[in-house]
Amino acid sequence: MKPAVGVIGLGLMGRPMGMNILKAGYPLTVWNRTASRADELVAAGAKLAPSPHEVAAASDFLITMVSDPPALEEILWGERGAMAALKRGSIYMDSSTVSPALARKIAAACAERDVKFLDAPVTGGDWGARKGELVFMIGGDAETLKEAEPVIGVMGKKWFHLGPNGAGQTIKLAMNAILALQVGALAEAIALVRRSGLQAEKLVEVLQSSMARSGVLDVKAPNLLKGEYVPSFSLRLMHKDLGLALDLANQLGVPLPATAAARETYSAVKGASQEDLDYSAVMKFWNR
Amino acid sequence: MKPAVGVIGLGLMGRPMGMNILKAGYPLTVWNRTASRADELVAAGAKLAPSPHEVAAASDFLITMVSDPPALEEILWGERGAMAALKRGSIYMDSSTVSPALARKIAAACAERDVKFLDAPVTGGDWGARKGELVFMIGGDAETLKEAEPVIGVMGKKWFHLGPNGAGQTIKLAMNAILALQVGALAEAIALVRRSGLQAEKLVEVLQSSMARSGVLDVKAPNLLKGEYVPSFSLRLMHKDLGLALDLANQLGVPLPATAAARETYSAVKGASQEDLDYSAVMKFWNR
Amino acid sequence: MKPAVGVIGLGLMGRPMGMNILKAGYPLTVWNRTASRADELVAAGAKLAPSPHEVAAASDFLITMVSDPPALEEILWGERGAMAALKRGSIYMDSSTVSPALARKIAAACAERDVKFLDAPVTGGDWGARKGELVFMIGGDAETLKEAEPVIGVMGKKWFHLGPNGAGQTIKLAMNAILALQVGALAEAIALVRRSGLQAEKLVEVLQSSMARSGVLDVKAPNLLKGEYVPSFSLRLMHKDLGLALDLANQLGVPLPATAAARETYSAVKGASQEDLDYSAVMKFWNR
Amino acid sequence: MKPAVGVIGLGLMGRPMGMNILKAGYPLTVWNRTASRADELVAAGAKLAPSPHEVAAASDFLITMVSDPPALEEILWGERGAMAALKRGSIYMDSSTVSPALARKIAAACAERDVKFLDAPVTGGDWGARKGELVFMIGGDAETLKEAEPVIGVMGKKWFHLGPNGAGQTIKLAMNAILALQVGALAEAIALVRRSGLQAEKLVEVLQSSMARSGVLDVKAPNLLKGEYVPSFSLRLMHKDLGLALDLANQLGVPLPATAAARETYSAVKGASQEDLDYSAVMKFWNR
Repeated sequence: MKPAVGVIGLGLMGRPMGMNILKAGYPLTVWNRTASRADELVAAGAKLAPSPHEVAAASDFLITMVSDPPALEEILWGERGAMAALKRGSIYMDSSTVSPALARKIAAACAERDVKFLDAPVTGGDWGARKGELVFMIGGDAETLKEAEPVIGVMGKKWFHLGPNGAGQTIKLAMNAILALQVGALAEAIALVRRSGLQAEKLVEVLQSSMARSGVLDVKAPNLLKGEYVPSFSLRLMHKDLGLALDLANQLGVPLPATAAARETYSAVKGASQEDLDYSAVMKFWNR
Repeated sequence: MKPAVGVIGLGLMGRPMGMNILKAGYPLTVWNRTASRADELVAAGAKLAPSPHEVAAASDFLITMVSDPPALEEILWGERGAMAALKRGSIYMDSSTVSPALARKIAAACAERDVKFLDAPVTGGDWGARKGELVFMIGGDAETLKEAEPVIGVMGKKWFHLGPNGAGQTIKLAMNAILALQVGALAEAIALVRRSGLQAEKLVEVLQSSMARSGVLDVKAPNLLKGEYVPSFSLRLMHKDLGLALDLANQLGVPLPATAAARETYSAVKGASQEDLDYSAVMKFWNR
Repeated sequence: MKPAVGVIGLGLMGRPMGMNILKAGYPLTVWNRTASRADELVAAGAKLAPSPHEVAAASDFLITMVSDPPALEEILWGERGAMAALKRGSIYMDSSTVSPALARKIAAACAERDVKFLDAPVTGGDWGARKGELVFMIGGDAETLKEAEPVIGVMGKKWFHLGPNGAGQTIKLAMNAILALQVGALAEAIALVRRSGLQAEKLVEVLQSSMARSGVLDVKAPNLLKGEYVPSFSLRLMHKDLGLALDLANQLGVPLPATAAARETYSAVKGASQEDLDYSAVMKFWNR
Repeated sequence: MKPAVGVIGLGLMGRPMGMNILKAGYPLTVWNRTASRADELVAAGAKLAPSPHEVAAASDFLITMVSDPPALEEILWGERGAMAALKRGSIYMDSSTVSPALARKIAAACAERDVKFLDAPVTGGDWGARKGELVFMIGGDAETLKEAEPVIGVMGKKWFHLGPNGAGQTIKLAMNAILALQVGALAEAIALVRRSGLQAEKLVEVLQSSMARSGVLDVKAPNLLKGEYVPSFSLRLMHKDLGLALDLANQLGVPLPATAAARETYSAVKGASQEDLDYSAVMKFWNR
């Protein structure tokens, strides 16, 4: 019989992840702060629990997918939190993006309860979540990962074992710093070209034929050129991840001058109340 | 009969460009400050002139390809410079990377002499130059470009008409700022991951499966991982181009915070006497 | 009769603050994680309590002076913490440097218990603490401040009422960002002058005669010139305060580009294990 | 008999400097691109020359005081330029702020003509120029300085001999980088405090009682608080000097991360067409 799965956090990512788990035939229990977000999953056969605690209690494999470290801490250690209900021998996998330090704190708490923990943030966006084509960046035991692979494989096309707990989060933060800087670099270049009186479209066309071609160029350049920033990953969340990356770097004493400079431009756009747009809206730093 | 071509500046780029011109059957006159750099071309049929002046005097289509603005100004307006000898009705194309302001100054001087000028910096590296697969970023008249295309086509696979004189340089500087930032972003991420005790190779592997994939990742990540920086484009030249991009931005009053921050890291590596390495040696900012 | 005072946190600042309170004739109860730090105060008449809880229970006026937000949270809400023991109607004044958000969280918890809270970080260093010449930056009710002034006046020469709870911390963080940048600016200028082959001592001499004269120049330039960084305020703490200032700015969406850039230089020096030196050791960023 | 003095460049600084020379009884010849700027000096006894050439030819002691390197090069080497007319054995002192490299280039040209050159930029503003209380930062021979002191003493209250030619400019650029960063730091702090809902006036009041007190705080804080930026030193010129300082640092390979970050904020304000205001108008970066 398939193990019982739980999903806590039913946002743009958590909902399609849960749907793929259901489709693969796993019994599923879910919880979300705003309960209505569970409607579609419940209609498809999921059980809605009254609190994180009950989800954990009902699951052999718990997944959390929330927006930031405070939200995750609340779900785990807040009132009717999940941590105290996790079953001995079960697997808990967090796919939120949080600090490596929090991942290690969770790992330690899980170890005390004989729960196997993986930090497993993802990339691929809501599109990848729907298609079941996420990429997982995983920190934790190789054996736990082995055991978790059937469930992971239902949501993702690839997974990387990157080291002990915390490693998944570290690599994810490094990746998002790169993405934020690539978008920032493109925005700076577009601003320069436009102020020079030239068409930024031509810059993008040339870049496509050069070593500066990139996934970011394919996906985000159209946003920047049109000034349309329909969110696939919000500026709010990218700004948060930049903060986590810089916090980590500062704890370790690794200077990240360009990331730090780019973060201030994201920050300015956040300050102009544009944080619900896609993070490519950093372009507005120059278009004010 | 094919027009007579001249090439001034026979470095890593100018030599193979000249060779492709010869192979295509154009009569070629060349000059280089260090004359021995011309040996191979002379052996292949080029004529070595005693100064830039004679190259210009002998050419229907003059090409310059030197390392920086002062070198170009010296070649054009220094002793026995080329400008005064350019033939009425001839085409002059500069493929060096210099400021848009200098490109416009040259254009004005050419216009006085009834010479048709294109600013036409390239991308593609020495490998692209040998293969005849350079990409040209061109500023100037569409008609002049039309007339120049047969010669350009011998050296390059693609060319973009980007606007009036200066436009080629502007787009080139914007592109190089992006490249420098992409490499800088990768270096920051690798430094962070390594200081976290993880393998940077795994970061690169994950990036390849994500939206952060890029030409820079393919070409430069191996350098950064191995700490080997055999120059395909030197840190000295990238540092110069960053300076030109920031000068332009500052004249126009366009803030480029991330580019400016990255430039200081390149500068530190230059200050450690590593400027003849590939620009990916910016990694040494963290490895001191 | 004088109100009973409590001091929790007996570091470089807390000890002399406690001593001045004793000298002024207030009954004093103290606690410190490392108990031996209390010896001098106990010898002078203070009572050493077994935990923060007992200090709070014994005090009409509680003062905390610890190194960072986690230390303060532990003292207030950890095992045998102070918060639960604060007396109805008593005054609690925190002189640590923490986030305005934590100050407001404490204020809310105090309000529930009918305790009057002031956030009151200080400037003036250990020298000012010994002399009783600290400057207090205060957030909270004007009436509470009025009531607290006799005790504050024993430790300080000046106090500023800056607004509601959190205001003291906000102003303190802004001040420390300025100090860190002033020292950073001086370090950058010294590095530039020295690399130019000139004597930095002459730069400092000229600055003294110019609008660039400053308290920082008087106090910190000698450190930078001699390369001696005996801590009066450690780089570790300044680095922490820069992090708090940038966190605040990022939450509010206020870009602080120069502060962010300077922070990365402090971070690099921290990463080279020099964080126990005075914060003027940021000079080592250039002297590696 | 007193030596004949020449002054080229009659802006906010050059006019009062010339007036003090006249008052001290020196015969004075002057030139300015806009001749009407000389009216007051001519009325007071100066002779207006038709070009820089004639000023140099008439002077035993030539002073230039112009706004930037291109202006100085034009005056020295342009049509009817001063260099070719400088008298053997005369003293030439440039008080403009230019690059150390240009100062050394001028020194070499002077040496060929047996002219004694001092680079001698000043601080003290137009107020100091009127009062004869400028501070001179001097590069060049000690003997030449000795010989120049009577004339310098008429315009200034202090002068510092800082090293060989170029040293004056190097120290001046380092000083202006510090001033720009101090103002920038203050602007960042004020922006943070205001966005926090507090009064920036209180921040300034507290700073006055702390180690963060400074000449900049005294002179520029009122501008920032009121949002009034009557120019005593224009943002255009400060932006230029930051560019010169960063150029110098980049040639030497000295990273100046905070200066570079601050420069981009000045640049943004320049881009908003506010460059004729005082440089404290960098505050507008946050007030857009």
